[in-house]
Amino acid sequence: MRRVVVIGIGTGNPQHMTVQAIDALNRLDAVFIPRKGESKADLAELRREICRRFISNSATRLVEFDLPARDPHEPTYGKRVTDWHEGIADIYCNLLSNEGEDAVIGLLVWGDPALYDSTLRILDNAAAKFDFPFETKVIPGITSVQALAASHAIPLNDIGAPFVVTTGRRLREGGFPVGVDTALVMLDGECSFTTLKDATHYDIWWGAYLGMENEITLAGPLDRMTSAIVTKRQQARARHGWIMDIYLLRRHRAPRVPEAQRMP
Amino acid sequence: MRRVVVIGIGTGNPQHMTVQAIDALNRLDAVFIPRKGESKADLAELRREICRRFISNSATRLVEFDLPARDPHEPTYGKRVTDWHEGIADIYCNLLSNEGEDAVIGLLVWGDPALYDSTLRILDNAAAKFDFPFETKVIPGITSVQALAASHAIPLNDIGAPFVVTTGRRLREGGFPVGVDTALVMLDGECSFTTLKDATHYDIWWGAYLGMENEITLAGPLDRMTSAIVTKRQQARARHGWIMDIYLLRRHRAPRVPEAQRMP
Ligand SMILES: C[S@@+](CC[C@H](N)C(=O)[O-])C[C@H]1O[C@@H](n2cnc3c(N)ncnc32)[C@H](O)[C@@H]1O
Ligand SMILES: C[S@@+](CC[C@H](N)C(=O)[O-])C[C@H]1O[C@@H](n2cnc3c(N)ncnc32)[C@H](O)[C@@H]1O
Repeated sequence: MRRVVVIGIGTGNPQHMTVQAIDALNRLDAVFIPRKGESKADLAELRREICRRFISNSATRLVEFDLPARDPHEPTYGKRVTDWHEGIADIYCNLLSNEGEDAVIGLLVWGDPALYDSTLRILDNAAAKFDFPFETKVIPGITSVQALAASHAIPLNDIGAPFVVTTGRRLREGGFPVGVDTALVMLDGECSFTTLKDATHYDIWWGAYLGMENEITLAGPLDRMTSAIVTKRQQARARHGWIMDIYLLRRHRAPRVPEAQRMP
Repeated sequence: MRRVVVIGIGTGNPQHMTVQAIDALNRLDAVFIPRKGESKADLAELRREICRRFISNSATRLVEFDLPARDPHEPTYGKRVTDWHEGIADIYCNLLSNEGEDAVIGLLVWGDPALYDSTLRILDNAAAKFDFPFETKVIPGITSVQALAASHAIPLNDIGAPFVVTTGRRLREGGFPVGVDTALVMLDGECSFTTLKDATHYDIWWGAYLGMENEITLAGPLDRMTSAIVTKRQQARARHGWIMDIYLLRRHRAPRVPEAQRMP
């Protein structure tokens, strides 16, 4: 049976790679690498660097493919995304057909494959279409959530307390999540923390390009940090042409976590 | 200035170690390793195995120390824990004093240091007591949350949807978290999923000893899996003398995630 290994590669620092991921890379017959379609050139390049740096098995082939674009003429957002996923599933089916029946192939996923990533869903799609069964195995990777906490040297949770992982859109539309004092916000293109009422009730720990050369972090009381973060984010985005950022918001009600000292 | 590097080591599989963690290990002057006090002998042994396997720098010393026990005569749970943390902070201060002024020392933390772990708080405690300032740096590690998702080959979140990470106690006392359809439950000594009303409304993905030799996973509709998990857990715990488990609960309201095929 063919096997697909979905490998978490961490969030931009090649050193995020685990021994397990490196080991898995070197047991692959082929790794499928998206050639175009990734708007962020730095990110496509990271995948190649990881292959260059960590694949020592000369039998592992790099198979590049073009990612389809989303159809700008499809008006419904949901359909635009599912159509796009279908398109990618078709490509995976094609590529898999070209491989031997016992082939083990790899897909490299940013961060961890379980966290806001479509690869596993696309593979489920592909499994439904593909003539032959194939198996999926997942290798976990360092997430941007952990990269954020590590860079600020903070715990995610207060002692025994829960936290929410959510998106910028949810924060904007639904306000701060109920029942928790800590929220991790991802996929936020709009600095949605600016829409919170009572900014004085929160602390924020923000990070962009975490683990990468251009890493930026800022932290402090939300009301005092808002404009600094908005400005920094705009500037960085203008300079690099893209940005990925994430932040942790903690409500004051709980005792404040003293900010740990950071290594310079 | 002295430096303390808090290194996430993953959840039991030495292959969870990242390149960054291995690199950090090999730049240490000393790594502080708890000798006794860890009830779970396998876990203490894993720390030693990681050092044996990954430290190639002969200048890195292993400094073993005895973890204090919690005072069983202290009646208040909160105070019992903070006293215990104070005790550990005192030990860290002592050990740090014995090191040179520019020493870089390491602490190995199970999983990721940001997730339900006290090391960063204890170091904040120590910083307040210690005569000299020291810096703290954190290296992220694979968490049990990711190990769970990887073993089941499932995404943590529905598309664009939030999720909660919480504890067994919270689930028992507060019921299923509000505002989300997905909850990750950790630190649950009591199979708290059995206390949920409407077991037919949930799917569960459960895992114990994730990443380790004895890894066990079970998944399915909660009502149909409950007794199987309770029994398996009891048996495994009896056999090994300890257990660590974690699970993901997903409410049915959202479309079901088809269970990905697993590699045997
Ligand atoms: C599509 S999700 C993928 C998440 C990824 N699977 C993970 O494990 O982190 C992309 C979002 O992750 C966050 N993110 C990923 N990498 C990041 C980085 N290096 N720095 C800051 N945020 C990052 C941002 O919130 C971004 O919008
Ligand atoms: C004190 S917390 C530490 C969590 C750790 N810092 C992490 O990143 O996963 C211990 C809890 O983590 C979960 N856990 C840790 N390792 C695990 C493993 N190998 N298998 C299953 N659950 C695990 C269990 O819920 C356990 O009660």
